[in-house]
Amino acid sequence: MRSDASGRALPQPYLLFLGDITEAPFAKTAFGLRDWAGGLCIGEFALAASTVTTGLPRLTPQEAYARGARALVIGVATRGGAVMPAWIPALREAMEAGLDIISGMHSRLADNRELAAAATHLGRKLIEVRTPPSNIPVATGRKRTGKRLLTVGTDCALGKKYTALALTRALRKRGIDADFRATGQTGIMISGAGIPMDAVVADFAAGAAEMLTPDAAAGHWDVVEGQGSIFHPSYSGVSLALLHGTQPDVFVLCHEVGRERILGLETFPTPTLREAIELHLILGRRTNPQIRCAGVSLNTRGLSDEQATRELANWRAELHLPVADPVRGGAEMEQLVSACLATEGLP
Amino acid sequence: MRSDASGRALPQPYLLFLGDITEAPFAKTAFGLRDWAGGLCIGEFALAASTVTTGLPRLTPQEAYARGARALVIGVATRGGAVMPAWIPALREAMEAGLDIISGMHSRLADNRELAAAATHLGRKLIEVRTPPSNIPVATGRKRTGKRLLTVGTDCALGKKYTALALTRALRKRGIDADFRATGQTGIMISGAGIPMDAVVADFAAGAAEMLTPDAAAGHWDVVEGQGSIFHPSYSGVSLALLHGTQPDVFVLCHEVGRERILGLETFPTPTLREAIELHLILGRRTNPQIRCAGVSLNTRGLSDEQATRELANWRAELHLPVADPVRGGAEMEQLVSACLATEGLP
Repeated sequence: MRSDASGRALPQPYLLFLGDITEAPFAKTAFGLRDWAGGLCIGEFALAASTVTTGLPRLTPQEAYARGARALVIGVATRGGAVMPAWIPALREAMEAGLDIISGMHSRLADNRELAAAATHLGRKLIEVRTPPSNIPVATGRKRTGKRLLTVGTDCALGKKYTALALTRALRKRGIDADFRATGQTGIMISGAGIPMDAVVADFAAGAAEMLTPDAAAGHWDVVEGQGSIFHPSYSGVSLALLHGTQPDVFVLCHEVGRERILGLETFPTPTLREAIELHLILGRRTNPQIRCAGVSLNTRGLSDEQATRELANWRAELHLPVADPVRGGAEMEQLVSACLATEGLP
Repeated sequence: MRSDASGRALPQPYLLFLGDITEAPFAKTAFGLRDWAGGLCIGEFALAASTVTTGLPRLTPQEAYARGARALVIGVATRGGAVMPAWIPALREAMEAGLDIISGMHSRLADNRELAAAATHLGRKLIEVRTPPSNIPVATGRKRTGKRLLTVGTDCALGKKYTALALTRALRKRGIDADFRATGQTGIMISGAGIPMDAVVADFAAGAAEMLTPDAAAGHWDVVEGQGSIFHPSYSGVSLALLHGTQPDVFVLCHEVGRERILGLETFPTPTLREAIELHLILGRRTNPQIRCAGVSLNTRGLSDEQATRELANWRAELHLPVADPVRGGAEMEQLVSACLATEGLP
């Protein structure tokens, strides 16, 4: 991929670490990597107690290194966001086999003394993808070359990363030169680069977004993973910095069917789709007067095929815009991709 | 003052340090403290080379300590934002006299080895007002008791702090229980508390704004110093986090006559006042549906009295809102204060 300006480049390919988990939802990161960066995943490695599998070959760190792996990725979440004591011997084994360790957990690997000492001793790196680069400038607002697409949402956690990845894949399928630009830890592991927007100091957040999407060739597309929502009382600042800093030519609004309240903040309704489109246009025009909405990515999980088809059709009729569920794909998704590429028309 | 929840409380009163500067604009912090926290300033202390004065008594640290001073405040800015080597003996002398040192400079006092060693040796504190508290939570959006006023701007550096300080003073004059809530380093030194919003990690920026303006008595007003502008391509995220986190009942829009371009980003026009009021209302309603604009604080520096009077009258006629220059005060300012307190009417 064309690198961003953050200077981050993760060691690859990966061996996915599943720890000792017995419930699949905790392995969201590992599944995300398998699905979106399968070519970078040599296999999986787990403790004997683990009952979860990604379906990739189960390998020892030595075997994985022999097959080319250069990093062990912590592919699971823990309740406290910290390294579990039971993992230490396995992580040490990975470092002894020659692998660096990549983590997106809340607590830093280096804060574990045993791990830190082993890494120093073995000359391995402990890489925290939640740590932003130290050289982020204040945003300048300068117009950059190339095209930019941003996924935005009516709320958090409803498909902005998935949509950006699916759009990148679809654009490439059409022969378009496109890069997924990661703004969160899982996305960074998938793409091997990116900036964790939520961890950047507020004054530099828009600067981070500019750094993430540098000048590019006229036909090139940066497809940027959105964060939070401009309607989210906790994270709206991050979302606005990302909108102003990426200067998107096009945005795709992400929503989940039935999400009527902000997740975890039940007194706040989610906005209507029309309201969300309108406010993103108003705010986005500040740094890109040509900004337009290509359409809606509608998360229809939990609906039957028939229900989903009806739901998508209803929204399409209401908004006069392409509406697709990237998980279901189909003709609707192709229409959404075409709308992203259209240089004229649409609100 | 009623403390915010940040836990910060600076040692006071102050001795103002002017270093060796010879140009008054570099002493903005010292002048701000003299003007807005005069009761807290025992005197000034400068190197022999300095030709600038605040008009306060010139004292040695020993004399200032004897008169009650408990901290030396770095009252001047330097080009690089760092401690000058020539200052070190004076700062050491202050610590020897019993004073802690308070700095709002970009580089940390503690990064100067000589100062750090002296502070440890003498048992004095080196206090960096640019460092936010470490316990800032993610915002919850919970409605809090008491009233809140936020100053917002069409750009940076046109009077948001001054306006908030002047409004706090005017409210108190009317017997209203009001506190100035500082969000930048000079404001923090003036009030002895506050949070430097620009230094908070993006995900916690709205949480910092909530922490700054906790539950209060029904008749109490928090008057919050705004930061940046939602129209500023570099800092809009900070401004939106502050707007959503403080949940203002009232905002006052600050503008400077003739400021037609964003400072330092000349390709971006400042918004019209009408546009700025409208967008703050739309965004602010997300966390406070009752938000209203009390009026405009217009910076008329550089205009003659006659010109200023005409300018203020023109804007008043155009916007149908109180428009005042707090530096000039007068009946217009009293109208603006009354509009802040009005519970009904106005857009």
